[in-house]
Amino acid sequence: MEPIAIALGDPAGIGAEITAKAYAARQDSALPCIFAIGSRRALEGVWDGPIETIETPCDAREVCARALPLIELELREDIVPGQPTMEGARCALAALESATGLVRSGKAGALVTAPVSKSQLATIGFTHPGQTEFIAERCGVARTSIAMMLTAPTLRTVPVTMHNSIASVPELLTTELVAARIRATARGLTRNFGIERPRIAIAGLNPHAGENGMMGDEEDRIIRPAMDMLAGENMTLFGPLSPDTMFHERARETYDAAVCMYHDQALIPLKTLHFDEGVNLTLGLPIVRTSPDHGTAFDIAGRNMARPDAMIAAIEVAASCARRRALDEA
Amino acid sequence: MEPIAIALGDPAGIGAEITAKAYAARQDSALPCIFAIGSRRALEGVWDGPIETIETPCDAREVCARALPLIELELREDIVPGQPTMEGARCALAALESATGLVRSGKAGALVTAPVSKSQLATIGFTHPGQTEFIAERCGVARTSIAMMLTAPTLRTVPVTMHNSIASVPELLTTELVAARIRATARGLTRNFGIERPRIAIAGLNPHAGENGMMGDEEDRIIRPAMDMLAGENMTLFGPLSPDTMFHERARETYDAAVCMYHDQALIPLKTLHFDEGVNLTLGLPIVRTSPDHGTAFDIAGRNMARPDAMIAAIEVAASCARRRALDEA
Repeated sequence: MEPIAIALGDPAGIGAEITAKAYAARQDSALPCIFAIGSRRALEGVWDGPIETIETPCDAREVCARALPLIELELREDIVPGQPTMEGARCALAALESATGLVRSGKAGALVTAPVSKSQLATIGFTHPGQTEFIAERCGVARTSIAMMLTAPTLRTVPVTMHNSIASVPELLTTELVAARIRATARGLTRNFGIERPRIAIAGLNPHAGENGMMGDEEDRIIRPAMDMLAGENMTLFGPLSPDTMFHERARETYDAAVCMYHDQALIPLKTLHFDEGVNLTLGLPIVRTSPDHGTAFDIAGRNMARPDAMIAAIEVAASCARRRALDEA
Repeated sequence: MEPIAIALGDPAGIGAEITAKAYAARQDSALPCIFAIGSRRALEGVWDGPIETIETPCDAREVCARALPLIELELREDIVPGQPTMEGARCALAALESATGLVRSGKAGALVTAPVSKSQLATIGFTHPGQTEFIAERCGVARTSIAMMLTAPTLRTVPVTMHNSIASVPELLTTELVAARIRATARGLTRNFGIERPRIAIAGLNPHAGENGMMGDEEDRIIRPAMDMLAGENMTLFGPLSPDTMFHERARETYDAAVCMYHDQALIPLKTLHFDEGVNLTLGLPIVRTSPDHGTAFDIAGRNMARPDAMIAAIEVAASCARRRALDEA
């Protein structure tokens, strides 16, 4: 497998710190060869370990054992942790663009992205909702074909709707969208985790999954028809399930992933169980892309307080998925 | 403390089985003196241990060590596990009524209710949404003054809205209702758990608690004003918090209870962490009332498969709260 590219994200956030800490812990975690893309200042400001500039990803192989390999991008100002700037956003975007290109061209094995500031990116004219949509565009994939899987040691969830108000969720759910997310989940499980016939739990929208229509009819009107549309495809579906009783230990053992109707339905169980280990894996891309499931954490940036657990997990998941895909292509 | 009354619930459900199993485990669990109210047939159908009929709760003290004390109610038909009947619903209601009266009059120390079938109760003219509202009426308390607290070893949650569709939640939330639930939570924590100045976490409704209005405005329009209304009262409030990051282990240590905006926001974290141990404690009543947080489980009734963990926990919580209240009244 080629070295894994880590785009360092916003220089005023915790991206460089968690990347350096993940590198420092590489032996304990048995991490694969990685390299960073971003500003040297961002790394040096939070870490006093060895950094070596490289020109291309393949140089990382030789460097990785003695220093954190870095494809260096220019940042023409000082970094104030916690205070994002337009120049910092430009650097974050350049890192993302460069890293995506290297993975897309096969020079790097997988893409791991540290967090960016969406509002800061907007100030420099970035019009995508987030990094994921940018990556999809660069990969030539329609936004509607991608899905986000949250993965942690004992649970994988895929939300159907995402950063939407609760009031808007019922009108955003359609049979087509639910079916598309289930299908993306099934393909993602096969492609990235080698699960031949995925078992997928489908959450209801409402308490007790509507209890026969007494508390909402989206289960009968939208979710069941979506499941019916997929009959005969290579997956085993359960549901719509009562959302509160589908995430405990014995329940989780019965499925490979849960498809959830809204952000917090997917994120509450995952972060309650695995707060520091959540990884975001983008499904539907021709490349492997993961990110730690947290934000820039501007409030603790530059204070040596950030935990690298999720970044380490993101690198591990990326490596594992990339190896699995390479096997299938071999 | 007076003996604790257990209303056996629907005879075709698992109420008798979990009560008998809880009694059988009383020494391991160091349970207080309990007695059952319901049909002897229901108990004998699922348990071959000793049962002794008593006339009044105080007889239970002497009987409890050698047999499960029972205030017997007539049931004029055979029980078919999993198949609720009108006669069974009448028996369940009589048990609830009798048990409530005994606790209300001080003859029993607390009320624990096993699950009933709401739809079966409706067929015999029961017009309350559930047992809780019936008990409130018998205690002379307005429905709006009561609240449900879910309690488990490492988390207590209080939902503001309950058995409502997700689509209806935003319109059901009002500043007055949220404030009333927070106040009931604070009083309940003091009264039942002896917490002098309760620390209460308030969940947002939307992902990331709305993220400054970008994903819903209920946090600013309804939840913050409710918290402001309570300024100066004897409680410490945090929030509105991002719902997905408030239930992990370190977060839970910072508060005594979480007030949640809808059923699954309160129930998903609780049942994910403590599936078999959830207890429903009714706040706002003059008596202590708990119930195991599960239903009649008609699908496994009569098969000796039901776990008594939640019933045991419900008895323990009831006993602990009753002792605390007795201390305060002494």
